[in-house]
Amino acid sequence: MAKLLIRDLAQIVSPAGTDAPLRGVADMSALYTQENGYVLCEGGRVSAVGGMDDLRQLDGDVLELNGRGLSAVPGLVDCHTHACFAGDRVDEFSRRAAGATYEELHAAGGGILSTVEATRAAGEDGLAQALARHCAWMLRAGTTTFEAKSGYGLDHDTELAQLRVVRQGGGIPTWLGAHAVPPEFPDADAYLDFALSDVLPEAAQLAEAADVFLERGAFDATQARRYLEACRAAGLELRLHADQFTEAGGIPLAIELGARSVDHLEATGHEGVRALAGSDVAAVLLPAAALFLGRSMPPGRALLEAGAIVALATDFNPGSAFCESVPIAMTLACTQLGLGPAAALAACTVNAAHVVGRADRLGRVSPGYIADLVLLDAPDWRHLAYHFGGDIISVVVKEGEVAWMR
Amino acid sequence: MAKLLIRDLAQIVSPAGTDAPLRGVADMSALYTQENGYVLCEGGRVSAVGGMDDLRQLDGDVLELNGRGLSAVPGLVDCHTHACFAGDRVDEFSRRAAGATYEELHAAGGGILSTVEATRAAGEDGLAQALARHCAWMLRAGTTTFEAKSGYGLDHDTELAQLRVVRQGGGIPTWLGAHAVPPEFPDADAYLDFALSDVLPEAAQLAEAADVFLERGAFDATQARRYLEACRAAGLELRLHADQFTEAGGIPLAIELGARSVDHLEATGHEGVRALAGSDVAAVLLPAAALFLGRSMPPGRALLEAGAIVALATDFNPGSAFCESVPIAMTLACTQLGLGPAAALAACTVNAAHVVGRADRLGRVSPGYIADLVLLDAPDWRHLAYHFGGDIISVVVKEGEVAWMR
Repeated sequence: MAKLLIRDLAQIVSPAGTDAPLRGVADMSALYTQENGYVLCEGGRVSAVGGMDDLRQLDGDVLELNGRGLSAVPGLVDCHTHACFAGDRVDEFSRRAAGATYEELHAAGGGILSTVEATRAAGEDGLAQALARHCAWMLRAGTTTFEAKSGYGLDHDTELAQLRVVRQGGGIPTWLGAHAVPPEFPDADAYLDFALSDVLPEAAQLAEAADVFLERGAFDATQARRYLEACRAAGLELRLHADQFTEAGGIPLAIELGARSVDHLEATGHEGVRALAGSDVAAVLLPAAALFLGRSMPPGRALLEAGAIVALATDFNPGSAFCESVPIAMTLACTQLGLGPAAALAACTVNAAHVVGRADRLGRVSPGYIADLVLLDAPDWRHLAYHFGGDIISVVVKEGEVAWMR
Repeated sequence: MAKLLIRDLAQIVSPAGTDAPLRGVADMSALYTQENGYVLCEGGRVSAVGGMDDLRQLDGDVLELNGRGLSAVPGLVDCHTHACFAGDRVDEFSRRAAGATYEELHAAGGGILSTVEATRAAGEDGLAQALARHCAWMLRAGTTTFEAKSGYGLDHDTELAQLRVVRQGGGIPTWLGAHAVPPEFPDADAYLDFALSDVLPEAAQLAEAADVFLERGAFDATQARRYLEACRAAGLELRLHADQFTEAGGIPLAIELGARSVDHLEATGHEGVRALAGSDVAAVLLPAAALFLGRSMPPGRALLEAGAIVALATDFNPGSAFCESVPIAMTLACTQLGLGPAAALAACTVNAAHVVGRADRLGRVSPGYIADLVLLDAPDWRHLAYHFGGDIISVVVKEGEVAWMR
């Protein structure tokens, strides 16, 4: 593999230091910045970063990329997506836009179960094709690492197919076996009996983590505990969808079980913020979902100031956030959550890498880290958040190779 | 000029009927829809639209564009931008994101006057270059017609330079002579004395409309009336920025003076909604600005249901909405304003065309209308609003010619 030298970059920016995860306003807002610099990639990793003045003659095969006028930031890590789905929910979106309630949408055949139906019908090949299309969108938006959950199968074959497809598509699979109760089961407990006995053993071989939707109408705290404890015993890391619509005990449960993250938090109050700040459970904020559903935003600034591990992701899914763009999540973080651009960048790079267990190698532009970078055609890297929906990504580098170029 | 035939389009969608402007839920939500169709363009206009089954043999030079799998909608009309500016305000954006107040930002050298400084310094060539860059962004986002205001010059030469640059750049110029009071004048009245005596006579030859920022800290209702009456006497159409932060009499003034539109309306209450609905003044909604500033959204649903002429635009500007994307404004209209996708489309096509005085020829895919179209790579045209920040625009056709193609 040839070396890749990206030279004459106007700006190279990365979360500062070597700690992971980052917490608090000062650490999350600190940046390593190099003006007029270069990044050298070898064997898929960054081998050197510095100023052009310090660049020495390189031996061997070197591919050069001219970075003049461009800013470089770490490849974006989307640590919460449901990218492996079939179909869309544009009808539901349109009905909601015109004022239909959640209950009315459900009655009209909308909601998670409509995507379950489409996903089951797609077959593994169909799902792989859909994911490939979604992956191309994500890459083009600067995402070089993505997590994706199952949870649109809710039967043995489709749940495992989703996990295989995500893994084969280069994603990090999470078993969201407890996303909703499928119609063929009388209640959540009966479904969990099935999921834990018939799906978990194989899911645990494919997924890195397990996730549960702890919410009124999905799974309650007792059911979530049962599911998560069984998944932990099978060797999976734990994550939770919690406090999206109501505070239902997700935060204390996540802390007690040592979960990697608790995600959503739109309904979280002071107590929850304080509890998370005193724990090692990351708070994954999903502002595009709050926006899509027209709900209040999660308490981003309070979590940041209290010292919680704040991460940021898209929640890309066909129902509540048809948005694969981490840069748009950054704009929303800056305009709705009270995160400055630097904290927003840390939240979707190094802290998101922590949520998926890869903060030792992803989320920074730094020697030894995997050479994932996004090059921006903008006079200042902060345009990534400031230019709302702007088409400013010029090049995406993944593992030291150009993966997308305008 | 050769004919352009766009054939095998999966979907062709346009606001229905021939009326303009459209009002009310039913009329704004009605669509002309043709599945598996074609659009024929001749001499820059649409000459025929129909189903592929009805397409007859064409004579003469015909350029064919394969529309298989694509949906066609009218070219988007952005009826409220400040696209002619120099510099950016990314520092101000970052400070605001981290919690600085409007007053603190102003004290730190932010606000409109910082863009005035950069715009005055750019010179007419520099401004033309900046606008060209912004025009490329807008076109790529599906905007085929844009209005752009002056208001970053606030002196004789720069105001007129902005209007010339907009006109030469293919935009529709609006003289926003009353945007802010520049520092060289002691107060708003003294500045208006100058603007109306020294700038208006030439501005009236270059612009199509005049606009005023009626707001606490800018111009009050008495000053706005004086400015607008003078501009009307000079032959200009009238528009107002009003009710952005406070209700300060903009709506009754707009109605009394027969303005084309009143824009922003984030602070508008029931009375204002009722007054607008009973008038011929269009309500131009700018949700990206409300989002950028973290403010409440304008009462879109109430205006739609009451029967006001609702239009939608970006407010593209470096301070309060660094966003040139009408599709993002559509997503915000659907998720924040209570407009369905069809009403949102009418608001940024035929109704926006009305606001800029061109509803007889822009905003529909219909014989006789100017052949401006956007072709979408999506299974349903509503993805234009549903796919938040999605990169789905494949082709932009302007006056019957391909102006941008992926």
